[in-house]
Amino acid sequence: MKFLVIGGDAAGMSAASKAKRNDSSMTVTVLERSHDVSYSACGMPYNIAVPERAIEDLVVRQARVFREKQGIDLITGHEATAIDPAKKRVFGTTDQGVSFEMAYDKLLIATGGSAIVPDLPGFDLPGVMVLKNLDDGRRLKAYMAANGVRRVVIVGMGYIGLEMCEALAERSVAVEMIKPGKGFLPWLGEPLSDVVQQEVASKGVKLHIGCEVHRIEKRGPGLAVICDLGQLEADMVLVAIGLSPNSDMAGAAGLGLSVKNSIAVDRTLKTSDDHIYAAGDCADAYHVVTGEKTFIPLALRANRAGWAVADNILGARVELDGVAGTAVFKVFDLEVARTGLFPKEAQQAGFDPVEVVIESRSRAHAHPGATPIHVRMIGDRKTGRLLGAQMVGKEGAAHRINAAAVALHTRMTVASFSQTDLAYAPPFGPVWDPLLTAATQLLKKIG
Amino acid sequence: MKFLVIGGDAAGMSAASKAKRNDSSMTVTVLERSHDVSYSACGMPYNIAVPERAIEDLVVRQARVFREKQGIDLITGHEATAIDPAKKRVFGTTDQGVSFEMAYDKLLIATGGSAIVPDLPGFDLPGVMVLKNLDDGRRLKAYMAANGVRRVVIVGMGYIGLEMCEALAERSVAVEMIKPGKGFLPWLGEPLSDVVQQEVASKGVKLHIGCEVHRIEKRGPGLAVICDLGQLEADMVLVAIGLSPNSDMAGAAGLGLSVKNSIAVDRTLKTSDDHIYAAGDCADAYHVVTGEKTFIPLALRANRAGWAVADNILGARVELDGVAGTAVFKVFDLEVARTGLFPKEAQQAGFDPVEVVIESRSRAHAHPGATPIHVRMIGDRKTGRLLGAQMVGKEGAAHRINAAAVALHTRMTVASFSQTDLAYAPPFGPVWDPLLTAATQLLKKIG
Repeated sequence: MKFLVIGGDAAGMSAASKAKRNDSSMTVTVLERSHDVSYSACGMPYNIAVPERAIEDLVVRQARVFREKQGIDLITGHEATAIDPAKKRVFGTTDQGVSFEMAYDKLLIATGGSAIVPDLPGFDLPGVMVLKNLDDGRRLKAYMAANGVRRVVIVGMGYIGLEMCEALAERSVAVEMIKPGKGFLPWLGEPLSDVVQQEVASKGVKLHIGCEVHRIEKRGPGLAVICDLGQLEADMVLVAIGLSPNSDMAGAAGLGLSVKNSIAVDRTLKTSDDHIYAAGDCADAYHVVTGEKTFIPLALRANRAGWAVADNILGARVELDGVAGTAVFKVFDLEVARTGLFPKEAQQAGFDPVEVVIESRSRAHAHPGATPIHVRMIGDRKTGRLLGAQMVGKEGAAHRINAAAVALHTRMTVASFSQTDLAYAPPFGPVWDPLLTAATQLLKKIG
Repeated sequence: MKFLVIGGDAAGMSAASKAKRNDSSMTVTVLERSHDVSYSACGMPYNIAVPERAIEDLVVRQARVFREKQGIDLITGHEATAIDPAKKRVFGTTDQGVSFEMAYDKLLIATGGSAIVPDLPGFDLPGVMVLKNLDDGRRLKAYMAANGVRRVVIVGMGYIGLEMCEALAERSVAVEMIKPGKGFLPWLGEPLSDVVQQEVASKGVKLHIGCEVHRIEKRGPGLAVICDLGQLEADMVLVAIGLSPNSDMAGAAGLGLSVKNSIAVDRTLKTSDDHIYAAGDCADAYHVVTGEKTFIPLALRANRAGWAVADNILGARVELDGVAGTAVFKVFDLEVARTGLFPKEAQQAGFDPVEVVIESRSRAHAHPGATPIHVRMIGDRKTGRLLGAQMVGKEGAAHRINAAAVALHTRMTVASFSQTDLAYAPPFGPVWDPLLTAATQLLKKIG
């Protein structure tokens, strides 16, 4: 059995490692176009915050460990460019410009995603950065060091933008953020979004919301972002408006694509070809709340999917439940967490969403150091099901969200969730956990 | 309708308040033997830690608010001593020694629990304290102030003992703790128990484990705890070996009793008498994992049960799901959390328990400030069900346990739980949440 993996990050290396553990006699080959494998991409903002820290600190396992200790044929600097599913062959080019081709019995496409860059003038100028892979982080740190960057404009206000905003502020870099459309974090709903917006603004970050970017121009040694407002000057621009799946090669090979052009896979991670699997940021997933396909590229899913593929190529039938849309990020002193659907998504999925927003406290009555915790909870009027929750607070939001995430996996009703026996002690929350208070209020609205 | 409540703490006042909200025309009378109502008993150790803080800071709502704003006939200093279910009357004595009697249509017994004191010589000496109600806390603080307490022996190593150990250490009081039997926190299992024991010992607390107490004697201005070891001298002794339900009056009235003599109630909180309910630390509950009766007196259950009673006396049929045995406490720098069954309990309940213990980290790879998180997880070999989890760590244990608690309510298998989409960001944990790592390992053992 020859198992070929395209892409050496979370999904690819998880699959390769587990495949070898499953059957050490298997030939496992990984093609990686860069020279970085198995690194914590999510850790980049925290690394960038500290100029002295090497970006290589984020490498979880060195390439030579995979090669020498695990017996994986890990080939870096090799980019796969085409797949022939009929002949079961992959074609590509090395970073030396040499063509290669390779046969497989089972193939895993783990090509990840790419930062989306708008098709507008000037987004290809030096100093316009994205942050997806380790090379991006390396380039960005080097650029900041070489150019003495003191002013940055971040295009986009998603979680990577916000994490980077904090990282840059830690380096005393002046940050402006800009996005089109209404609202700061529209998916959070106004009350919670306002809390986060105030936190970010209070740290001196200038936010330009509802402001369209037209182009980027060179301006002296720096750059100017031309937008509805006029122009924002910067030494560097970071584009953080989202991620698109690297699925062109899969599409060209005739594999079925899905939401946002991600590669369509079934619950066993198999594509429309019986011998080809896809996992990680290039592939879709089932959403446990809607039961429908979704594209939510996150690290846990990538790792989990990689493991499942390693089992399934050997004839197992590991089916993944799907994703709940659980995510968390830190921005300055706040934890922002979500799971499930927000009302607009719920409506689009055919639910009849009802929501509540409550404010509770992070510690018990009379316990020193308590700070506000804000919860938005969404339920379905028709079935009474819990559909989603979002939380914002200085402490206790990040891990609390998991209780709601588990409830979504089991399609729990708001009524049942409101009865759960959650932990209480004065240093950690009120007697009624903020999630329980939200559920109790939501239950009244559902009626 | 005359609704009479015996006991003015969490369960009793929750029921009285909700009953008035449900039907403002109802006559709601609460008999409370002390003069304290509606206070945060769990906050006492944190209050005791600070000599200047008044114990009254723990009062959540003043008696006059219940009387004047909520229209509840709240009568303090009145102890109920007997119930005649046939005549629907309650008898008692005031703290002035005057007898009284009172009729009811529906009765709630919310008499709470009492700290267990061993029937041994000297446990009635001045300076031997317990900590259950606000009067206990008041007495303890006054005793410490009046006697310049510098050395305390705590009999028992449960969570109240440990919280008090931290509180006393904050006041620079030298603490020794003593308990009979094997193990420091035997329900945690050795690896996790050892972590907590080391933390406590590292703060200078002397632990005498497996050491039987024989009696307490007066020794000069202080006390001596006579035990297997010889004697431990102290200015004050705190007895914290558990809680027994205040159910004598209920038992004398012929109501059915249950586990540890708690008052037996059905899912609607009704006792064996159709007109009498019981809630709070005096009553039993169903355990969501075993489906059997249990006695786990905790604040959330008391509040929740009080609310349900207020609905049910009006003819509703609110059924409580039960308790999962979720609990958390802080001791020095550690969070200790649990939910569900530990292996011995699981075995006694007829399961075939399998356990794993894993060590993970509180933050991601390469993220500064990460500390160990220890997880023990228990599953059932026969059904694959998740039965319980315990966690110890400096951060992220307290709220994480709730994810497992929700899983217990829905009788989730370890396999399903291992697939849940839990939150990840570098400041808050590794990609695989410690609970997921434990579940994945446990799954292998269950096979």
